[in-house]
Amino acid sequence: MSVTTTNEFRVEEDALGDVQVPAEHLWGAQTQRSHMNFPIGVERFRWGRTVVRALGILKKCAALANGELGQISSEKVDLITRAAQEVIDGRWDDEFPLVVFQTGSGTQTNMNANEVIANRAIQLAGGVLGSKKPIHPNDDVNHSQSSNDTFPTVMHIATVEAIESKLFPAVGRLRDVLDEKSQQYREVVMLGRTHLQDATPLTVGQLISGWVAQIDQALDGIRQVLPGIYPLAIGGTAVGTGLNADPRFGEVAARQISQETGKPFVSAPNKFAVLSAHDGVVTVSGALRTLAGALMKIGNDVRWYACGPRAGIGELKVPENEPGSSIMPGKINPTQCEALTMVAVQVFGNDHAVAFAGSQGNFQLNVYKPVMLHNVLTSIELLADTSRSFCDRCAVGIEPNEKRIKEHLDYSLMLVTALNPHIGYEKAAKISLTAYREDISLREAALKLGFLSAEQFDSWVRPEEMTHPLRGNS
Amino acid sequence: MSVTTTNEFRVEEDALGDVQVPAEHLWGAQTQRSHMNFPIGVERFRWGRTVVRALGILKKCAALANGELGQISSEKVDLITRAAQEVIDGRWDDEFPLVVFQTGSGTQTNMNANEVIANRAIQLAGGVLGSKKPIHPNDDVNHSQSSNDTFPTVMHIATVEAIESKLFPAVGRLRDVLDEKSQQYREVVMLGRTHLQDATPLTVGQLISGWVAQIDQALDGIRQVLPGIYPLAIGGTAVGTGLNADPRFGEVAARQISQETGKPFVSAPNKFAVLSAHDGVVTVSGALRTLAGALMKIGNDVRWYACGPRAGIGELKVPENEPGSSIMPGKINPTQCEALTMVAVQVFGNDHAVAFAGSQGNFQLNVYKPVMLHNVLTSIELLADTSRSFCDRCAVGIEPNEKRIKEHLDYSLMLVTALNPHIGYEKAAKISLTAYREDISLREAALKLGFLSAEQFDSWVRPEEMTHPLRGNS
Amino acid sequence: MSVTTTNEFRVEEDALGDVQVPAEHLWGAQTQRSHMNFPIGVERFRWGRTVVRALGILKKCAALANGELGQISSEKVDLITRAAQEVIDGRWDDEFPLVVFQTGSGTQTNMNANEVIANRAIQLAGGVLGSKKPIHPNDDVNHSQSSNDTFPTVMHIATVEAIESKLFPAVGRLRDVLDEKSQQYREVVMLGRTHLQDATPLTVGQLISGWVAQIDQALDGIRQVLPGIYPLAIGGTAVGTGLNADPRFGEVAARQISQETGKPFVSAPNKFAVLSAHDGVVTVSGALRTLAGALMKIGNDVRWYACGPRAGIGELKVPENEPGSSIMPGKINPTQCEALTMVAVQVFGNDHAVAFAGSQGNFQLNVYKPVMLHNVLTSIELLADTSRSFCDRCAVGIEPNEKRIKEHLDYSLMLVTALNPHIGYEKAAKISLTAYREDISLREAALKLGFLSAEQFDSWVRPEEMTHPLRGNS
Amino acid sequence: MSVTTTNEFRVEEDALGDVQVPAEHLWGAQTQRSHMNFPIGVERFRWGRTVVRALGILKKCAALANGELGQISSEKVDLITRAAQEVIDGRWDDEFPLVVFQTGSGTQTNMNANEVIANRAIQLAGGVLGSKKPIHPNDDVNHSQSSNDTFPTVMHIATVEAIESKLFPAVGRLRDVLDEKSQQYREVVMLGRTHLQDATPLTVGQLISGWVAQIDQALDGIRQVLPGIYPLAIGGTAVGTGLNADPRFGEVAARQISQETGKPFVSAPNKFAVLSAHDGVVTVSGALRTLAGALMKIGNDVRWYACGPRAGIGELKVPENEPGSSIMPGKINPTQCEALTMVAVQVFGNDHAVAFAGSQGNFQLNVYKPVMLHNVLTSIELLADTSRSFCDRCAVGIEPNEKRIKEHLDYSLMLVTALNPHIGYEKAAKISLTAYREDISLREAALKLGFLSAEQFDSWVRPEEMTHPLRGNS
Repeated sequence: MSVTTTNEFRVEEDALGDVQVPAEHLWGAQTQRSHMNFPIGVERFRWGRTVVRALGILKKCAALANGELGQISSEKVDLITRAAQEVIDGRWDDEFPLVVFQTGSGTQTNMNANEVIANRAIQLAGGVLGSKKPIHPNDDVNHSQSSNDTFPTVMHIATVEAIESKLFPAVGRLRDVLDEKSQQYREVVMLGRTHLQDATPLTVGQLISGWVAQIDQALDGIRQVLPGIYPLAIGGTAVGTGLNADPRFGEVAARQISQETGKPFVSAPNKFAVLSAHDGVVTVSGALRTLAGALMKIGNDVRWYACGPRAGIGELKVPENEPGSSIMPGKINPTQCEALTMVAVQVFGNDHAVAFAGSQGNFQLNVYKPVMLHNVLTSIELLADTSRSFCDRCAVGIEPNEKRIKEHLDYSLMLVTALNPHIGYEKAAKISLTAYREDISLREAALKLGFLSAEQFDSWVRPEEMTHPLRGNS
Repeated sequence: MSVTTTNEFRVEEDALGDVQVPAEHLWGAQTQRSHMNFPIGVERFRWGRTVVRALGILKKCAALANGELGQISSEKVDLITRAAQEVIDGRWDDEFPLVVFQTGSGTQTNMNANEVIANRAIQLAGGVLGSKKPIHPNDDVNHSQSSNDTFPTVMHIATVEAIESKLFPAVGRLRDVLDEKSQQYREVVMLGRTHLQDATPLTVGQLISGWVAQIDQALDGIRQVLPGIYPLAIGGTAVGTGLNADPRFGEVAARQISQETGKPFVSAPNKFAVLSAHDGVVTVSGALRTLAGALMKIGNDVRWYACGPRAGIGELKVPENEPGSSIMPGKINPTQCEALTMVAVQVFGNDHAVAFAGSQGNFQLNVYKPVMLHNVLTSIELLADTSRSFCDRCAVGIEPNEKRIKEHLDYSLMLVTALNPHIGYEKAAKISLTAYREDISLREAALKLGFLSAEQFDSWVRPEEMTHPLRGNS
Repeated sequence: MSVTTTNEFRVEEDALGDVQVPAEHLWGAQTQRSHMNFPIGVERFRWGRTVVRALGILKKCAALANGELGQISSEKVDLITRAAQEVIDGRWDDEFPLVVFQTGSGTQTNMNANEVIANRAIQLAGGVLGSKKPIHPNDDVNHSQSSNDTFPTVMHIATVEAIESKLFPAVGRLRDVLDEKSQQYREVVMLGRTHLQDATPLTVGQLISGWVAQIDQALDGIRQVLPGIYPLAIGGTAVGTGLNADPRFGEVAARQISQETGKPFVSAPNKFAVLSAHDGVVTVSGALRTLAGALMKIGNDVRWYACGPRAGIGELKVPENEPGSSIMPGKINPTQCEALTMVAVQVFGNDHAVAFAGSQGNFQLNVYKPVMLHNVLTSIELLADTSRSFCDRCAVGIEPNEKRIKEHLDYSLMLVTALNPHIGYEKAAKISLTAYREDISLREAALKLGFLSAEQFDSWVRPEEMTHPLRGNS
Repeated sequence: MSVTTTNEFRVEEDALGDVQVPAEHLWGAQTQRSHMNFPIGVERFRWGRTVVRALGILKKCAALANGELGQISSEKVDLITRAAQEVIDGRWDDEFPLVVFQTGSGTQTNMNANEVIANRAIQLAGGVLGSKKPIHPNDDVNHSQSSNDTFPTVMHIATVEAIESKLFPAVGRLRDVLDEKSQQYREVVMLGRTHLQDATPLTVGQLISGWVAQIDQALDGIRQVLPGIYPLAIGGTAVGTGLNADPRFGEVAARQISQETGKPFVSAPNKFAVLSAHDGVVTVSGALRTLAGALMKIGNDVRWYACGPRAGIGELKVPENEPGSSIMPGKINPTQCEALTMVAVQVFGNDHAVAFAGSQGNFQLNVYKPVMLHNVLTSIELLADTSRSFCDRCAVGIEPNEKRIKEHLDYSLMLVTALNPHIGYEKAAKISLTAYREDISLREAALKLGFLSAEQFDSWVRPEEMTHPLRGNS
């Protein structure tokens, strides 16, 4: 094939021959082929910042490791790390046009990084784009590496960074805001509800403390599984044996990555497992699902407690962020709760894809790597986004509707339990049943039946004492 | 291996040699091997009545087809069909000890049927158990068949029969009971709720009509997908080519099965697809999931409308079936709703397993047949059981709490919409906002603002007219 | 709040007050609020062409219906339909900035359409943007409608259109290409495999006919469930009663939509069900999952048959689209299969989210509408994209490796079955076992044992006759 | 209602009145009501040994705690603990007739334990069954407890015990057997495969070491999440406040349970979270799913490596446990792999149900407790059963087919990589391509091209050196 380079195109070459690449782009032949061969989900499934950054980190650290081990010259190391640093910093995000649905090893995205960094290094050295001199995408940028070990390494870097930099701060802030609310309303006694039926009381603070405990447990759960993805595949190369890499390469590269990111990444003790399976990633996805389930419970609680304003439970008030219906003034829709619970459902779906994909490895490779990475990152980002939004536009403004809470509490039959020690279970039951059947208050029923005096009732039936607020449970 | 038959054991033989079978049982060597080789989930995952019956039907009809095509003698046909009829009738259920987690083709369960029917036929003929004379489990009972076509045939027979005989009657009855309720309460106007917030009114009958419509749609959905499992694999034998079977065998056997069951089973036009995949079964499972989702919505609605008795919505009353807590008299827990929604969740899980399994076929066989069949049947049976229980112990007794409904309705701000045509949107909005802010009724606010007279208010604000009850929507 | 309109901003107003909207945009106050209130997944979850087009169709047809019923003037109808037509045609896609994770009714996206169409109609009439004159977003564009009935209507329109215009052509073409392959290779006899073990033979054409049958069944399944989403919610307004809409509006609007789209949309008989649940959408998602499962089986078969080139099955050759590893020349990775099976896994995840969301309705509304729509559309688009890509870059080039196929077939022990009718099962078994144990061919074993002559062997053992190719099964 | 006690029935009473209980049973009124009210899945969903034992442990330890805190007399403590010990020991399993699909709090199963232990204690004391003297099911056996805190406590006890006593030993043994195999075959070099395509070599030992590493990681993952279910709900009573229990009761009871079981159970720091959500259980289920996915990969690898015997990969031999097809002698089906992967799929389904259920709590209670417990226990038991069966009937007998492995290795093109350092990449590539195109061996191609001598080839191309077996990776 005779190719003429024009203003529009540059000719790049790979093992299958020449490819025309748009002249304004840094990517090369293999990226261009993949760009053309996988027009699948191009609008929504292109790799984003987090992955491009992780690719840059990996390539920079691999170059440093190669330099340290004498595999490539210090000049090359310098050029590659400068180019890779720009990738890390986000300068070349537009040079990563590929999507999730490509080869299942992520090879083409690895080559995309190799090609962009090589061409950018060539630019920095004043060379000719596409010449592969002085920096070759495979021989230099990809030195001591294979897609099969680099892509899983990127999966781990990207996931850890997204969790630490996005998820933890956002969810942590929501947790803290709720914890403050829990303290603030620790004295407000409200009716409990089990089976959606009136039950014995607790405080608003205790209620919210349960949410906080769920978030704490979910965040702990995520922290607990992160060590499962600190071990990196780098050093395993093609099938896990480390063929064509210095035996020390995996350790050195992992150390460099750890230094670059400030996270305790290490070299995976068994490279065969981390190429052919991604159980650590599946486990992280499961931990994200637990968080999603916890947030779903919280979001549902908030909107059910806010159900009303008049014909529902109505015990919590939430901020009014958007107009309700044009015909129904005063209608406050718990829209942040709805976004939150929709995200939860999406995370369940993403997790399903991750776990399914994770089970489908064969022999020395699992070829569902890109779809796993995409879904885990999407879950992390959605959970972070929705937690921040729910926190700032809903949680901060949650207030108890004390009037309503008091009405429900005062009118409840379940307070009768407090009389058991004084008049016995049987008389207490008669009071409760009388109140229920005649639709009167417990107090009225108690006085009507003559089992105790008004003063006695008022001194014995004290909902706040039924909540044991001092027992450390809030 | 030298084997001595004793009072306790009988020696049966298969291709791998002799096996000791408990003397009191009709099954043979291959069943015994499987019984010993797969001690997995033996308490919960043994095949039940529905599958054993379907095996009996298949073997009877295969014998009839073999007879019709001159493949085996009429004496043999007679013996096999008599024995198979007993299997159909449930006489030998204890002779089917095998579990779901065996070979993925269900071969051993096919052999279980062959062995039991052969030995029972031998008994009927006065022969010696295990002698394979005059009826051989493979050569006679399994004539023209392979596990690879019989087991999928059993999957379809069992699924269709369970849906028609168990699911449709149970869910149909629930649907009819709800439909009656919908008619009965067609005049009872209640407040609507969207986003869990007070909205414009509808009638209790309309509410329930929505549930009925969901059930109707779900049942229609199941009916619609049944034709996807009428085509039977029988006739395909080992890989779908029909090797060693008369070319007419599939058609004739399917006709016999259709006559025996009264269902429109046919011979599958492409046998390769029905051995190597079970997409029809996956689709049925999906339709069951839709039903489960619909029942979940209904069950949730019932318990939320029954939320109370005092501090919740409380607009529906449900039967009191069990004592509530020993300390909280009058507590009615919506237990049938809870069982119903737990079943829904289980069906979602079962469906997940079915769909996953269905995607995992390779070449000429999908070897997840037993786990698919088990989960589909479990879903059918649970949905039938819970629908019947929910119907008889909850739905039949659902009653509107008219006092409560009226309070909620009268007090609602959303009725203001009815004033729009008379006094304009702006004045209506002022009334609504005044009522909301001052916590008074719309009527009070309207009169206070002087926009209209009490007579006008009472003649214009008529919730029942806002429900358009005559528009055919209930 | 005092707002000054500048070159950068325009003041728009809604029930909560004034909002600054970027001057260059057509959207209004509610869109702007939502844009600010829901910074969740903004990169990947913004509504796309399909949904914007469906919104345009709905608003155009609603205007026509309002005109036909005398609800709004013909001048307004004309302005609205002109503006809506531009939305349909894709001119204003950039004016739809909102994302999936907003209010669960999709209210803000409905308002986005109302605002853009109103402002564009105002432009067409020479009016002032934001003045709501002569066209008001609520009173005119949204006349006779509520988000609660428009958004589900859009869900159905968008889903049906995407399936018909994207999915069916793409998958249909794949089906046809495979069907041709099935015809082309109907005479090529290959070894069958069950349980991943050598089995009796079939033809390559029969193999591929099974794939075609799976696709046909899956497409039929999708066609079968489309009628479940032809019924539209439009006409139900806020809670399903049709409050503030002409009783005929639903029917007329559905007829207009049917004419506009050429699809048999109708007015839903029960509006309560279609607002509070989206079982039709769940069922469609289930049907897409069946297709994904079928494609997964096909994709897996192709890559396993192509496993090699030397140390695997290697019976099919697939096109070489990208260079394999730089160290391993001749390595062809089945990348289109990998993209295909990754899409399948993603569709399973999407479907999970849809079904979960579908089960979570309460009272008169399901507030998971946007997440359901997003996932169903994503599944449709991915399945279409990957089917087209797999078809054009893999399926068209699939070829049998006849040399390899013949080696496997000739060397197989399973052909011994053909001798049963001639020398009996026992002698056949001896031949097979001898061949297996001595690692020789069947023919060698047969001759060695002296059970038959070479001529007999060659005339009896004819794999092509074991495939019954004339029985219509390919 | 006038009830006459007969030989067949005994009258027991609860808050709703009298109930006839079969005279031969120890259970009481509430168990009987539930038995009649929930005929749902009775064949497969009755509670089993693990749960009954955990109920016994809980009730024994609660009695001890009540005794220690002076809540009930030492006589009562003695009677209750003796009866409870018998429940622990399995003597009264038949007295637990209830099923999963009951009230979502498990109340009726809690009462079942209370009633059986009370009546058994009454027997031990020589009292009259049903008299509630000297031991009352609620006041004594259930003292300081509520179903809402006991059932989640039982969930944790049962899950931890099942994992430790069943899962860990079974999977641990499989792990050890595989680890031995890994050592045994550490020198056997085989071809690697990525993307199902021939790749560079590794050893059989390295391959199996990857499986071992996956199991180790999965078991570690389960160990890591167990601390999430050591905290017990006991002490929270009805809504989490601990109403009607001594403030120290939770701590003391947890200590007793810890002593009884030998597991580090503690009192949950926040009782509201552990009643209204079961995130710890969801997380455990996720960890079981990871194990299932790992086993699926292993099971698939084994059967694909065993694919053959002649026309597949055929590099591993597995034990022959059952006869293959009656027509196809020598056919070994990898049936234990099939059972294993079917279990994996079932566990995925179970996990789906658990996670869904876990997200559905409201207010102070999650009412999906029984379905969560059932699915987690089923997953544990199936994983244990199938691991043991797979280990004993398959893994122990796995052997490399060294002849086959050598053929594949010798004939592979990928060994060319070893020549790079000696003759350069370009000449190596020419050798590889020549071999591929002319279908000859690398060695033949190398000699034909004259790039090196036979001696050189043999000394440079040494697959075993490409596996780096000494690098600690096996």
